[in-house]
Amino acid sequence: MELDLTVPARALAAVAADLVKLLPGRNPNPVLDGVVLTARADRIELAGTDRERDVRLGCQCQAHAEGQVLVPARPLAETLRNLDAPSVRLVVEGTRLAVRTPTARFAIPLLDISSHPGVRQAPPEVGRLPTGRLRLAAVAASSASRDDALPVFTGVHLRVRSDRLTLVGTDRFRMAVARLPWCGEVDELDVLVPAGLLSEVAKQARGDEVSLRADSDRVGFGWDGAEVTSAVLDASFPDEGRHLAEDFDGEARFPAADFADAVRRLTPFVGHQAGLVVESGDGELRLRATNPQFGDAEETLKATTGGDRIVTAYHPRYLADALRPFGEAEVRLRLRNGARRATVITTPESPELHYVLMPRRL
Amino acid sequence: MELDLTVPARALAAVAADLVKLLPGRNPNPVLDGVVLTARADRIELAGTDRERDVRLGCQCQAHAEGQVLVPARPLAETLRNLDAPSVRLVVEGTRLAVRTPTARFAIPLLDISSHPGVRQAPPEVGRLPTGRLRLAAVAASSASRDDALPVFTGVHLRVRSDRLTLVGTDRFRMAVARLPWCGEVDELDVLVPAGLLSEVAKQARGDEVSLRADSDRVGFGWDGAEVTSAVLDASFPDEGRHLAEDFDGEARFPAADFADAVRRLTPFVGHQAGLVVESGDGELRLRATNPQFGDAEETLKATTGGDRIVTAYHPRYLADALRPFGEAEVRLRLRNGARRATVITTPESPELHYVLMPRRL
Repeated sequence: MELDLTVPARALAAVAADLVKLLPGRNPNPVLDGVVLTARADRIELAGTDRERDVRLGCQCQAHAEGQVLVPARPLAETLRNLDAPSVRLVVEGTRLAVRTPTARFAIPLLDISSHPGVRQAPPEVGRLPTGRLRLAAVAASSASRDDALPVFTGVHLRVRSDRLTLVGTDRFRMAVARLPWCGEVDELDVLVPAGLLSEVAKQARGDEVSLRADSDRVGFGWDGAEVTSAVLDASFPDEGRHLAEDFDGEARFPAADFADAVRRLTPFVGHQAGLVVESGDGELRLRATNPQFGDAEETLKATTGGDRIVTAYHPRYLADALRPFGEAEVRLRLRNGARRATVITTPESPELHYVLMPRRL
Repeated sequence: MELDLTVPARALAAVAADLVKLLPGRNPNPVLDGVVLTARADRIELAGTDRERDVRLGCQCQAHAEGQVLVPARPLAETLRNLDAPSVRLVVEGTRLAVRTPTARFAIPLLDISSHPGVRQAPPEVGRLPTGRLRLAAVAASSASRDDALPVFTGVHLRVRSDRLTLVGTDRFRMAVARLPWCGEVDELDVLVPAGLLSEVAKQARGDEVSLRADSDRVGFGWDGAEVTSAVLDASFPDEGRHLAEDFDGEARFPAADFADAVRRLTPFVGHQAGLVVESGDGELRLRATNPQFGDAEETLKATTGGDRIVTAYHPRYLADALRPFGEAEVRLRLRNGARRATVITTPESPELHYVLMPRRL
C-alpha cells in the first residue's frame, strides 16, 4: 500500500478525466465515487464502478513503489486537469495521496479501499470493430431518448446476424439505423447498450480496432488497455424493418449541408405546435414555415426528385439532427404518402446509415 | 412608408444583433420590442428604445424607396443572422416586411409605428476617448454588481476632474479603478453609467475614438454613426480614495499569469466558507487552501517581495477576476496588515488600473 510513482501529467489527467466521464453519476455510497489506483512497475491503472458500469483505464508510469489505494475520482481529476508541470509524482503520505510538482503539493484524503466492492472483469471478446466506425454508433446513440422514464429507449440495440452488425437508436419520434460489416467470434448477438455509455466510448476509443465484449447480462468495449463494461438494459426493442421496407412513394436527392442550412434559417419561423413543411417535386424542395410572432418564411432548393409530389412536415430540430451525420454528402430523402408514415434519409450508394423520421401532422 | 432597399446581409445582421444586445430586456409593452427601420438614400438606420436606453445604429444600403417601419427586433435579427446570401432585400409587402434572398423569402409582421414613443436624441458631446481604452471601462464594469437589489453597485462611476477621467466599478467586495487622461469640453463630470451597457459598448465600439455624451440625466456613447444613450443611475457612490491611499505594509511583484495559473490549480481546494490563503515574504508567494472533500494544497511562486511578511486570504474567483485584466504583465500586489483592510493589485509603473480586493477572514 506504499504507492509512489512518477507519471506524465497530461496523460494521467486525460485518463482521470475519461474515467469521470464514463462514470458521471453521483453515488449514494461515497466509496463508489472513488477511483482505485494501482501502480505496477511501468503502468498505473485507474478503475472505478457505480455497480452498473465498470471502467479500467491506464497509462505508462514509473513506479518507485507498487501499491493500490482508493481516492475520490473527481478531486483527483480536477487537480490533475489544472497542472502545467510536464510530470507529476503521486505518493501516499499517511492518510493522503500527495500529488506533487516541483512547486506545488496537493493532498487528497484516501478512502477505505477495503469497503470498495471491486471492479469487475469484462466479459469475453465476441469480435472487433474498426474504431472509425464508432462514429455511426454515436449517431445511433444520439437518436436515443434521454428520458429515464422510458428505459428501453435510452439504449441502443446492438444486433449481430451472420456478417452484419446493426446499431439502432430511437426515441420513438426518430430512429437511426447503422449497419456495419461483422466478422466476429459469434454470428448472433442481441444486447441493449446504454446510449450515454456508447457515445462516450465512441469519443474516447483510440487505436485501429475496438474489442466488443459480451455475455448474457453484460456488454463491454476494450481498446489500448482500456476496458469499459455495463449491465445491458433488459427490454424488447422495436423492430426497424417496417420503416426501412422498400415501399416509398417519392424521393429527392440533394446535398445534406444545403438542406441543413435552409432548415436552420427557417427554424425560427416554425410555430411551437407546427412543423417545418417540406414539399418535394419538379426538381426542387420547397420549405415553408409559419409562426404568428415571426411571420412566415419559405425557401427553395434544387434537388433531383422522383416519384410522387409529396408534402410532409417535420420537427425542425429532429430534421437538423438527422442531416448532421451526413455532413457535406449527397443524401436521398425517401418519402411516403399518408399520415404517420416514416421518412428515411440515407446516402444514395451502399448506405451504412438510415435515419428514420416520423413526420408531424400538416 | 414604402421602404425598399438592398443591403449587404452580413453587415445588416451584425447591426441588428448589436441592437438586440444593447436592448436585452423584454418589455411589457410589445411595441418597445420593435426596431424602427429608416431607409434614406444610402443608409439604413435601426433604432430602438426600452425607455431607459435609446439606441441608433446603421449601415450603408441602396434604398430603392425611402421609408420607415417598425418590426419586432429579435425576429429580424434572428432571420438575418442565419442568411448566407451576400446581399438581402428588405421590402414592405402589405402588412409585412419581406426579407428576400434569391432562393428564400421571410415575411415579418409590421408593428404599428404610430404607437412607438420614438428614440430620443443623444445629449451633447462632452469629450472623446480612444476606443482602445474602453477595455479599461469593461474591467470596471465587470467588477460591478449584477444584483438589481443594490442598484448603485450595478453602475460604473464615471468621473472627470480636470485632465483625468476615472471609472470605478464595485460590488462592495472588490473594486476596479481605471484612470485615463482626459481632454474634453468639460473639466468636471459625475455620472453613474449602467455597467451592463458600458460592457456592451466596450465590445461594440469601432473606429479610433468614442464620443462621450452627457447631460444632467443622460449619458451616451457615439462612434461611427452609432449612438447609445441611457438614463444615468441616481445614487451616491462610495469613494475609492481610502483604498488607494499609500499606507501599504508590504508588497510583492510577479507575473500576473503565473499567479493566475496557481490560483486556478488551488481553487478546487478552497472550502466553501474559506479563502485562498496568500503569504507574501522572503522572495516568494505561498498559496494554501484546505477543503474537507478535496484535501489540502499549497504552491509556491517566486516573487520580488518587500515590506512586512503578510498573510491574507481571498475569494479565489475574485482573485482570478482581478488578475485577468493584467494578462501577461508583471503586477504589484500591495498589502496591508490587519483584518478588513483592502489589497490593491496594479502594474508597477504608471498604473492606469488599480484592482482593490477585500480579503476574507483567515
